[in-house]
Amino acid sequence: MDISSRSPFRIMLLATGGTIEKSYDASAGALTLDVPVIDTLLATLDQPDVQVDVRRVMSIDSLDMGEAERAEVVTAARAALAASDVDAVVITHGTDTLAQTAQALATALDTPRLPIVLTGAMRPYRVADSDAAQNVAQALMAARLLTPGVYAAFHGRVIPAGRIVKDYERLTLIESAT
Amino acid sequence: MDISSRSPFRIMLLATGGTIEKSYDASAGALTLDVPVIDTLLATLDQPDVQVDVRRVMSIDSLDMGEAERAEVVTAARAALAASDVDAVVITHGTDTLAQTAQALATALDTPRLPIVLTGAMRPYRVADSDAAQNVAQALMAARLLTPGVYAAFHGRVIPAGRIVKDYERLTLIESAT
Amino acid sequence: MDISSRSPFRIMLLATGGTIEKSYDASAGALTLDVPVIDTLLATLDQPDVQVDVRRVMSIDSLDMGEAERAEVVTAARAALAASDVDAVVITHGTDTLAQTAQALATALDTPRLPIVLTGAMRPYRVADSDAAQNVAQALMAARLLTPGVYAAFHGRVIPAGRIVKDYERLTLIESAT
Amino acid sequence: MDISSRSPFRIMLLATGGTIEKSYDASAGALTLDVPVIDTLLATLDQPDVQVDVRRVMSIDSLDMGEAERAEVVTAARAALAASDVDAVVITHGTDTLAQTAQALATALDTPRLPIVLTGAMRPYRVADSDAAQNVAQALMAARLLTPGVYAAFHGRVIPAGRIVKDYERLTLIESAT
Repeated sequence: MDISSRSPFRIMLLATGGTIEKSYDASAGALTLDVPVIDTLLATLDQPDVQVDVRRVMSIDSLDMGEAERAEVVTAARAALAASDVDAVVITHGTDTLAQTAQALATALDTPRLPIVLTGAMRPYRVADSDAAQNVAQALMAARLLTPGVYAAFHGRVIPAGRIVKDYERLTLIESAT
Repeated sequence: MDISSRSPFRIMLLATGGTIEKSYDASAGALTLDVPVIDTLLATLDQPDVQVDVRRVMSIDSLDMGEAERAEVVTAARAALAASDVDAVVITHGTDTLAQTAQALATALDTPRLPIVLTGAMRPYRVADSDAAQNVAQALMAARLLTPGVYAAFHGRVIPAGRIVKDYERLTLIESAT
Repeated sequence: MDISSRSPFRIMLLATGGTIEKSYDASAGALTLDVPVIDTLLATLDQPDVQVDVRRVMSIDSLDMGEAERAEVVTAARAALAASDVDAVVITHGTDTLAQTAQALATALDTPRLPIVLTGAMRPYRVADSDAAQNVAQALMAARLLTPGVYAAFHGRVIPAGRIVKDYERLTLIESAT
Repeated sequence: MDISSRSPFRIMLLATGGTIEKSYDASAGALTLDVPVIDTLLATLDQPDVQVDVRRVMSIDSLDMGEAERAEVVTAARAALAASDVDAVVITHGTDTLAQTAQALATALDTPRLPIVLTGAMRPYRVADSDAAQNVAQALMAARLLTPGVYAAFHGRVIPAGRIVKDYERLTLIESAT
């Protein structure tokens, strides 16, 4: 049976920034990553038996994520896996280098003991017609149903690390042919 | 591997009414089931590789669902399972008797060849702070990841038919102790 | 010059219930007037130099408003007019008998020293596609620009007391021919 | 009497761009003025007896508005004033140089035969917690109630041309002391 009926189901959410968290700064007249939005988004979800603990790892555009930052994400994931009160890990991340971070996690963690699910958005949570709430809701659901491993959950699709590709034309993440 | 990488993933959505579809009728000054809302909700989701076909079975409050109506839902599910171009079935339904319909499906279909996922909402899609979009997004994700069987997906939780209970105090669906 | 440049401009808002304030009660499965919503609506408006004080007079459907309740509204309006720190009065009200209350106010107050502007909504604030925020924003603006008197501000139109008619077909308030 | 009871009340809306019209371009990962949004905003308003005709003059950030562009706005306003079927003019505009355009209009048009009301927003219509819908709704109401002249309507306040100042700290438009 694939269903985790652990109650509550405990998710560690590692927030790293990315488009999903951009919000409008009226003084600057531009989108910034100055205000964390993941907690605001989570507060709109109804999930009386899911416990989500948010840990802020960084707040950057994923195009600015280099080896050092990626190593920090791996370290944070390792810490989450080591905690006894975590049933799954969700990572919010910019889409431009989400595939690289997933690959880095899969390489570093080999076979993690829990599912690790990366997600993000093509349009910020704080912008009209955003895909952020959908992606986070679906990533949380996928985190509960998947077997241990590293994945992206995005636009209703689950893609294993190593096969994730950003489709810049259709503005989504797709699964590469093997 | 639990991930269905069939692309597009084809879902037959059977709509039956329920709170999720209630909308405000300004002439009547009340909530009614006169206007179908499932297509409107689906149009807000980003899922370029999920194909959802909506089939309207009925538009009723689930407290008004008797044996005859429940049999109609079973018949519609059977037809969906018989179609060669369907990978999973999602059913939108009122929460008051969602458990009974799930049980009726599980009994009638024995071991269905596909996942059948029932969902709904405690607050109508067209009302502030609705849980409808979350539940539908998560049901669609669950339908892709679950093994064949009959389930409820609700508020981030998946519950197998036979164990679904409405919690009238916390206003959610919970899993009964065995 | 019609512009009140008093800063801040001080509005006393008398809340009486009506469709505008209906919200969904998930336990009852119906719209109720149990939760006041006017403050929630006002909190979404940007008006750094308008000060709105909300006074709750009652929370009823305007079809349930009889002579006694109407007299209470008149008394509350009189109190607002007597206050030295009020520049205009806005009253939120159900649309079914808004015209009668406006007439009662005009009769009782003769020539009030301030503008008194009644408004409401055809669809509750907490329901999709509501006209509540528009009507309240426009009533607040009209309250600042109108000369003393009793009016309805609704759907972009201002109608003097004595000429207000509910159009049940087009679902709006209109001005009767003289 | 200040109320225009002309029915329908006919407004010519001149759109020039500005923050109010910025929307998120997922390909560019930034806010742009590529997609006009005024019609989308107007479609959410209920105003069965107000007729708004939108004329696109330009789509620029008001910091990019020079003498030539400002002259174009004056020309468009002149054309609107010359039309026999227009009862008021509303202009949507960026806030950074809205005051200059209002001044240019007041200077060029001397005493216009109709009210000309400029408005805009501190946060784009397509961004969470935008002030755009409020400002447009209130500008439309003000356009109906004001005597001929050039004004800004913004955040519940009406300011005559010549006195409009952007307050960069409180992020609003204020009226200068004389």
